[in-house]
Amino acid sequence: MPDSRGDPVEAFVPGHITGFFSAHPADDPDRAGSRGAGITLSHGVTVRVEPARTSQIRLDDSPITVPPVARVLEALDVTARVSVTTEVPLGAGFGASGAMALGTALAANERFGCRRSENALISIAHRAEVLSGTGLGDVVAQARGGVPIRLEPGAPSSNEMDGIPAAGTIEYLAFGKLDTATVLEGNLAEITRAGSRALRRVVDEPTLETFMAASRAFAGESDLLSDRLAGVISAVEDHGGMASMAMLGKTVFAPGSGLSDAGFEPVRCSIHDAGATLVARSD
Amino acid sequence: MPDSRGDPVEAFVPGHITGFFSAHPADDPDRAGSRGAGITLSHGVTVRVEPARTSQIRLDDSPITVPPVARVLEALDVTARVSVTTEVPLGAGFGASGAMALGTALAANERFGCRRSENALISIAHRAEVLSGTGLGDVVAQARGGVPIRLEPGAPSSNEMDGIPAAGTIEYLAFGKLDTATVLEGNLAEITRAGSRALRRVVDEPTLETFMAASRAFAGESDLLSDRLAGVISAVEDHGGMASMAMLGKTVFAPGSGLSDAGFEPVRCSIHDAGATLVARSD
Repeated sequence: MPDSRGDPVEAFVPGHITGFFSAHPADDPDRAGSRGAGITLSHGVTVRVEPARTSQIRLDDSPITVPPVARVLEALDVTARVSVTTEVPLGAGFGASGAMALGTALAANERFGCRRSENALISIAHRAEVLSGTGLGDVVAQARGGVPIRLEPGAPSSNEMDGIPAAGTIEYLAFGKLDTATVLEGNLAEITRAGSRALRRVVDEPTLETFMAASRAFAGESDLLSDRLAGVISAVEDHGGMASMAMLGKTVFAPGSGLSDAGFEPVRCSIHDAGATLVARSD
Repeated sequence: MPDSRGDPVEAFVPGHITGFFSAHPADDPDRAGSRGAGITLSHGVTVRVEPARTSQIRLDDSPITVPPVARVLEALDVTARVSVTTEVPLGAGFGASGAMALGTALAANERFGCRRSENALISIAHRAEVLSGTGLGDVVAQARGGVPIRLEPGAPSSNEMDGIPAAGTIEYLAFGKLDTATVLEGNLAEITRAGSRALRRVVDEPTLETFMAASRAFAGESDLLSDRLAGVISAVEDHGGMASMAMLGKTVFAPGSGLSDAGFEPVRCSIHDAGATLVARSD
């Protein structure tokens, strides 16, 4: 029920690690996007929205500029204070900007009574990410939850999605940021070929093992793997585990206890069982 | 990761209360289904699957016959013991048979390494429900979670879905079973007209209030409301709440504290934030 007491509204959006992808730009931002697959995480982003005279965005009480969040507020024609807290690092391949955009859309829709459907809000956040150049496929994956497969790119009106049925622990180690734009300029043709191969493997056999193997092959073929990340992945493999690199960030992720078993001290979370959601207020 | 130790695998599927619907039969069970909208519940069905020499289904340790579950096992070509526990009553409009079918598909796929995607498993469960005559729209709603809108009928390959963004408490009072088949034979043309009107209202304004109002109107127009259920709904409305009837069961449901406020002693749960999921094993 809409809030008539003036309280802030909160939404939670899972982090999303892309294992492999191919980029599909288009003039229409509803059709632009990426194919690929990834894992949504129980670690994510919480967004709180409340009315304000001028729109402002704060991360852990410090002002920040997040173009896709500003675009979402404009699309809903509201001015709001957006307060973000995050369990996942920014710029490290966890889809934090997509999570902020989608969380803002869900919470602002509820707080201001915008009366949009879930698909409409996902589309608003997806377009905001595409137009800001901050992401192509995180929003639609974060809206679904689980281990989403993006079969066709774009917003809900034009995309096609499936998922790998899986549950369990995910471990990750984040070593810092990677400049997405620079990477994509460098070798987009090679990435698209490698991403298409990886997607065919996962469609043929939609299991977590095949997803990890396809992601690992993609990371090598697309020439994005640094020596440091390659070393961590090899160590996991030497201990009988599977690991790959988050696209795009200096982050290694592994299902189960892959990183712990190899002697690292990773962050542990789990595959998230839900897409983005409003946080229910206690009665 | 697939289980190599021989342990059973569990899946949880939320209950689903349909507020209004229109039936759309078709020769192809992937295309048959219903349009409409409903609420998925944090109360649902847990299904445990383990190998067995002959397939058997047990509810709370007593053998039962559930044709859609048997059809799911056949479709996956496995023989299994399926053990069901349920928080929602059977035959009272909570989609329990769809939940059993979908939970069996998810858990059996994992236990026996069937390597099907989420959409493939949803399709198997949807077809099993349609061919058994036990349901038309619960499975796809239970796979999505939240407050699903079924815009186009059928399995994931042919349907179209959206959702109402909402969270919060749901209360319900279940008074017993309703014979779905007899009801549907009686006045399907009237139900389809009333269901189409209700869907247009919710598409125009996808909020929980409009969903409840459209469901209440549908219950009256479709001539399915008994005097007893109508009396409970009126009592909730007299206390400023909203309530309607679960389609199809002798059950009244209300968001928030609608039934409590009117002096009833309902069961309380909440809108479920996730679709059907495997239950993660502890590491």
